This record gives sequence, structure tokens and C-alpha cells, in this order.
Amino acid sequence: MTDACAFLDEVLDDEQVSRREHAREERSGDWSTAPEAAVRPDVVVWPESTDEVSAVLAAADERGVPVTPYAAGTGLEGGALPAQQGISMDMTRMDEVLAVRPADLQVDVRPGVLGSAVDEAVESHGLFFPPLPSSGDISTIGGMIATDASGMQTVKYGEVADWVLELEAVLADGTVVTAGSKARKTSAGYNLKDMVVGNEGTLAVVTRATLDLAGRPRQIRGGRAVFESLATAGAAIADAVQSGVDVAKIELVGPFAAQLANAYAGTDLPDSPMVFVEFHADHGIENEIDFCRTVFGAHDPIAFEMAADEEMDELWQLRKDMAYALDEYDPDLRPVHPGDVTVPIGSFPDIVRFARERADEADLPMACYGHAGDGNLHYEILVDPDDPEMVDRGEAVYAAIVEQAIEMDGTATGEHGIGLGKREFLEREHGAGAVRAMRSIKDALDPNGTLNPGKIFSDEE
Amino acid sequence: MTDACAFLDEVLDDEQVSRREHAREERSGDWSTAPEAAVRPDVVVWPESTDEVSAVLAAADERGVPVTPYAAGTGLEGGALPAQQGISMDMTRMDEVLAVRPADLQVDVRPGVLGSAVDEAVESHGLFFPPLPSSGDISTIGGMIATDASGMQTVKYGEVADWVLELEAVLADGTVVTAGSKARKTSAGYNLKDMVVGNEGTLAVVTRATLDLAGRPRQIRGGRAVFESLATAGAAIADAVQSGVDVAKIELVGPFAAQLANAYAGTDLPDSPMVFVEFHADHGIENEIDFCRTVFGAHDPIAFEMAADEEMDELWQLRKDMAYALDEYDPDLRPVHPGDVTVPIGSFPDIVRFARERADEADLPMACYGHAGDGNLHYEILVDPDDPEMVDRGEAVYAAIVEQAIEMDGTATGEHGIGLGKREFLEREHGAGAVRAMRSIKDALDPNGTLNPGKIFSDEE
Repeated sequence: MTDACAFLDEVLDDEQVSRREHAREERSGDWSTAPEAAVRPDVVVWPESTDEVSAVLAAADERGVPVTPYAAGTGLEGGALPAQQGISMDMTRMDEVLAVRPADLQVDVRPGVLGSAVDEAVESHGLFFPPLPSSGDISTIGGMIATDASGMQTVKYGEVADWVLELEAVLADGTVVTAGSKARKTSAGYNLKDMVVGNEGTLAVVTRATLDLAGRPRQIRGGRAVFESLATAGAAIADAVQSGVDVAKIELVGPFAAQLANAYAGTDLPDSPMVFVEFHADHGIENEIDFCRTVFGAHDPIAFEMAADEEMDELWQLRKDMAYALDEYDPDLRPVHPGDVTVPIGSFPDIVRFARERADEADLPMACYGHAGDGNLHYEILVDPDDPEMVDRGEAVYAAIVEQAIEMDGTATGEHGIGLGKREFLEREHGAGAVRAMRSIKDALDPNGTLNPGKIFSDEE
Repeated sequence: MTDACAFLDEVLDDEQVSRREHAREERSGDWSTAPEAAVRPDVVVWPESTDEVSAVLAAADERGVPVTPYAAGTGLEGGALPAQQGISMDMTRMDEVLAVRPADLQVDVRPGVLGSAVDEAVESHGLFFPPLPSSGDISTIGGMIATDASGMQTVKYGEVADWVLELEAVLADGTVVTAGSKARKTSAGYNLKDMVVGNEGTLAVVTRATLDLAGRPRQIRGGRAVFESLATAGAAIADAVQSGVDVAKIELVGPFAAQLANAYAGTDLPDSPMVFVEFHADHGIENEIDFCRTVFGAHDPIAFEMAADEEMDELWQLRKDMAYALDEYDPDLRPVHPGDVTVPIGSFPDIVRFARERADEADLPMACYGHAGDGNLHYEILVDPDDPEMVDRGEAVYAAIVEQAIEMDGTATGEHGIGLGKREFLEREHGAGAVRAMRSIKDALDPNGTLNPGKIFSDEE
């Protein structure tokens, strides 16, 4: 049997190509729990330059060999896992911070750089990259661009797309394109940049990004409010956003998630819904906190505690422990397809209530939390993977929540992409016409279908 | 000779179709001064619903009849003027505000609605549409979306694209698609929404838009600083942005433009470069003004005057008079191709100096102004249209400034689109690969090339 990927040895050095079991296995997994559709790649490559990315893609495209870009493996929807064999292109060796330009408030980076490394590189200039997700210290800028990720601070500063100015990217046939502009605004031609952002590696592989930066706020304060019920917590969040409270973070933690985190940390806080907030300002931050206190006050909070520095970090600890608490709760249970939905802020209390009711009806433990100020809800329905009936019940609740979010004019995925996990919801959300238009763009830019095939669209195998 | 557009009488009512000279003539002109490439359409239609837009486009596409969308006629690059005969589709009868949803901070509108009408519809809810351009009382939301317009407040709030959540649009073959989401963030599939924003009516005709809104600021102050030279004014602006001064508007008016406006209004202000600023806050606005005063202070301003209400409006009057002053300056002169370039903020002082020097070398009067905080420069080089040598000189200066902006990693057009006027610069800015990718998207979504042909791409006739 001939090796369809033998050409790689012409294009790359020995240490940039691996066909070893371990390397291939690692790149068929990520943080998603639905990798059933994922397969092991035949070979893993580590390009180290734009030219090498281009050479690999061009040669693979000529031969009809699928290429799936991979990086930190922190995706929740399997977007970086091969749905077809072929090449897994690991971008983590292209991890340089190329240039910091403080006078332009910009930084140029390679896609494999960690989010936290970008922040470290620009910190001494008093700058930061605002949309960084919570996973920024273990996930790459390229992955964030591929999924149009966002984070806790998106409520104030916007999502990753809003802070990407220009991209160098390689199309399926190896063509290197520059999309967007280093100017803060442009209306020159079609917006290829925002087509590449969120493309999940199906249209192009990003090889360089120019990111916009903001000045670090001079004042930071934050803390925690505790509410009687999930309903009042949700209403308080919606009210704060509607009233224009200038929050930099506003996170919901539901009662079950609070209980897990309390148990994990051994704290004696009530197992009540909590809202974590953080404020950024250059001056007068106490005014904004007072405003928030007034707005929250109308929803009968049990507690409203704000502080600065270490004291603020202590108030936030429960939110930060949550991921670990969930992991350690019950080794026999695993979440059904962790991910998020996002709805218009006016519907946020309703989607929270809907999710809670469905989980209760199905008698399943569910942790819910999320970047609530954006109308974003993450939820983890816990099931025993060895109990098929329980798994089915969990899947049904999961699907019902996604469908309800779409029904409320929201989206099936606010910040993690479609990948393998949410293909079935794409057409329901966007309609057949829009999906056909997306598909025609895919066909135009990747006519041979070699770039990350099997993702986003459910018709593609 | 058969009338290729006879089908229109089947699809629309009599009063929605006109073949009269006057109607056709009007729709072959706009605010641009380079309509040489524009022709008169054969017929003008006024659709009143999405279904009618779809029916006209589908029937025209089948017959290979070009359709060019038109609205207020305020474009600067001829994007709404037919480059080929056929149908001019006037969207101004689709001008309803469909729904205001204050709980979601959203409004649904038809594309023909004036920007100012949107603001009026949401004002009673304490909301506003932040990216509205200065022309918002005479230009339509559809036109702003088609060019990804922006305005004075973009420096604080972002451009039109940032405030468009969801679009209903009709493709060339009549397919109605919904792009984007009413959720504030989504990563579900390709970002069609931001491909339609800025498409200049070449990929789709927008028939409904859901706009995001912001709460009106509780405090507004503003005024004017006067500087010794264009160089110090430009440096002060760049310094303010780099230092993170939270300005809602920061506008430059060059010395010649100041002179014209002073003469027009009969004021006795110095003919010196001026920087107009406005601040928005909910509290503590004086702190921000003090911060700006400190930053500007390092650039030796001649004056720094700030006020509120009518007094602020008086300080701003010269900026507002500028368009009229330019119109009335010398009836024998007209601007060569008014428009803008935009550069990274660190290069803003340099592009201002470059423009000034080129105009001086060519011995031509040039008014320059712009949304300086975004690195945006508008410039009007005045020439006598009956003096071909002077026109050539003006064209050369104009092109040199655009090319220099691109050289500085900026864009040929920050907010007015490519249209007919800037086609020659598209490839220079983006490179051949990116333009080919744009072109392949055009071909995928409009295979018969009937939607606004001849725009954006220079290879298309």
C-alpha cells in the first residue's frame, strides 16, 4: 500500500512529521465529549513557517488528502479533530510574538502562541488583549480565531473578532492571502477577515494575526452578589445590562454549580445562585459599583460584596474553582456535551429557567454558569456514560435547550463553534438558504474539500 | 426592440416602476465626483417588501438583467450608480421601523429608513444607535450597511458592522437568507453577516436589519482645542488615543479647512488646525476632560475650551459648517474625488503631513479633516474642472495619498467603500490572492453577475 502522505517528507524535515501512534491518537481528542465522529489522522505535521503551511496544503490539495488544523486541543465541539483521515496540522510550533507596536496599540503574532503569552508580551506597554477566554493560558490565539472565541470580558470589550485587525491565512490550494487591514476600520472590498475568523479551519489556516489592544484599566474592583433564586439572579443580570451598568465581567453560577464549588473548596457559602462581577475604569469606579448595587438591589440580593486586589480574588474564588469542582464531583458521571448557547439579553432569565426546568423534569444534575451579560449560558448535564437510558435523557435535555435558544432568536453556539458537535443545529438556526450560501463559499474557496472536511455542515462526510 | 425589463410589470404595480428620463437620470448620480463610469439605468423600481425584492432579483437573474440597488444617493464612491444598464432598485420605500425591543437593546428596521429616524424611534427608551455617520439625517441604514459606514463616534463605539446583529438579505437568484444572530455573539457557521455588511450591493440586497443599541450617556461635554500646526494637532490626537483618553468624538480640521469655515461663518478664530472633541460618560466626565487636557497640554495647544449643551454646540459650530464652507468656497473649483483613507493611529501624524506636503508641492488648495481618532483622514483637493492640467495634478496628489496610506498598512477607504471610484486600489491594498478569493465569493453567490456588476473589482465590466 502506498502512503498518500509520502510527499510530506519532501516538504518538511524529519522532526516535523510523525506517524507514531501516540501523536496521532492525541490529535483525535480534545475537551469535547462527543468525539465519536472523530478519527485518528494518518500523520501529524508541525509546520514552522507560512511557506511550509502553504507547501503542505498545496501538495495535499493536489492529491486530495484531507488536512485538519490542530493546536491546543481545548475545543468543546471537536472542530480540530479529523472527521476524515489524512494530515493533522499541529500549529503549536508557530508560536512567536513577532512585533509589539505600542504606538498603534497592535501586536503581530503567530497562531500557535498562547493567549497568556500575548498578554505578557504587551503588559509592559500598559496594554492587554481584552477578549481573552478563561482558558487563555492553555489555548492558542489561532484556536480562538478559528472559533471566534470570547471570554468573561466580552460583555464590555467584545469578542475575538472585534480585536483581530488583519490575518495572514493560507487557503486550501496553498494561496497565501492577507485579510483585513491594520487600519482600525476599512470598507475596501469584502470582509474576508471576518469570514476567516470563526471558519474553524475549514476555509483557511491562519498563519499570522495582527491584534488590536486596549490600555489596561487604572482601576479594577469586583466581587459577588448572592440571590434567592436562579430567576432573580437572571433578572438582576438582564436588568444591569439593560440599565447600562458598565461591567467588565458578569458571570452567573447556578445553585447546583455553587453547591459543587462550595463542597470542593470547603467553604460555607449558601448553595444559592451567585453573580460575579468585575468593573474596569480609569477613575470613578465606585460610582459604577454604586449603580450596580442599586440595580441589583431591586432583585433582593442576599449579599453584595465588592473589593479590590486579593480580597476581590477571594470573592471570585468559587467561580474559578468551578471547573475543577465539576471535574471532581462524581467520577461516575460525565457531562453530556459541554458547550454554550447564547440568547438576546431580554430572554436570558427565560433560557436559564427553561434549562433548569428541563433538567429537573428529567431528574438529572445540571451545573449552569456562563458569561451572562452577553446572554450566554453554559450548562453541563451530568450522566453515567454506562447507563444508556440516562445518556439518552441527558441528550434530550441538551438538545431541548439548544433548540429553545434558537427559538428565542439566539444561537446554538456563542463561542465554541459548530465543529462536529453542533452540525445538526446549523440549518435550524440559519435556515436552508443561509446554509446553502455558506456551503457555496466553502466550495468556492476549497473546491476539492481537503481543508478540515466533515465540519460545520451536516451534509458533508 | 423588446424591453428586457418587461417582466417588471408582472411583478410590481405601475407606481413601482418608472422608465421616465428624470427618475433614471437621478439614479445615475450621487455625491461622488467621478461618475464617468456610471450609466443611466433603463428602469427604476421601488419594491415595498422582501417578496418583491426577491421576485425582481430572481426574474432579472434569469434574464441576465443587471440590478443596482440605490437609496439616498449620498455615496462618495459611486457604489449605487449603475455601471451597466438594467434596473436601478430604489429601496427608499422600504423604510419602516418594524420593532423596538428595549429589553434586548435592539431595533428591527427596513433598509430604506433614515439613520435619524432610527434614533428618533429609540430615543424615548433612552437608547441610541452609536455608529451613525454625520449624514445620518439624509442617508439610509441600508446604505450604511452596504458600505460599512462609520461616523464621528466610531472612535468610542465602533463602526456600523459592530452594531448590526442580524440581516435579512436577498441573493442574486432571489434566495432570501438570514445572516448573523440576534444573540450578541455567535460562532455558528460562517460569518455571512459581516460578508453582507460592506458588500456594496454586489452580493445581496438587505431587506431587514436588527441593530444593536446602547444606552444614551448621562453626561455629554465637548469642545475644541487649537494647535500651532497640523503636525502638533496630529500628534496630540495620536497621543490621546495611545494614552487611552476615552473620547466619543475626536475630529481634526486642518488650517485651510478652518480658514474656509471661518470665512463662511464670519468668525474671528485663528486659521489654525483645530481638534474637536466630545466626551460621553455616566459620571465623572470632568476627570476624563482633565485627562485629555493633560495629554493635549504636552503638544502646546493655543486653546482648550470645553463646555456642555448649547455652549458646546457653539464650540463645535465651525466643524459643522465645514461641509457648507467647502461647497461655497469658490464656484470655479470642485474637489477631486472626495473620500477618505485610514491608517494605524501611530501613522496618523505622518499621513496628515504627507498629504499637506503633496498638496503644497502641487500648489493646490486642499481641505483636510476627518475622524482622526480612528486614523481617518478625509481630504478634498480643489481643482478647476475646466483646466485639464490642474485636474491631472489634483488626481496625482489624490492617488499619491491613497497609495501612501496603503504603504503605511492603512486602507484606501475607511468608510465609503470601493464602488467605482477606488477599484484600481483594491489589489494594491489586499494583494492578488485576497482579491481572487473575494472574486470567487462573488462568483459563488452571484454566478450570473447580475447584482450590481462592475463594482469593487476592476476586471469586471
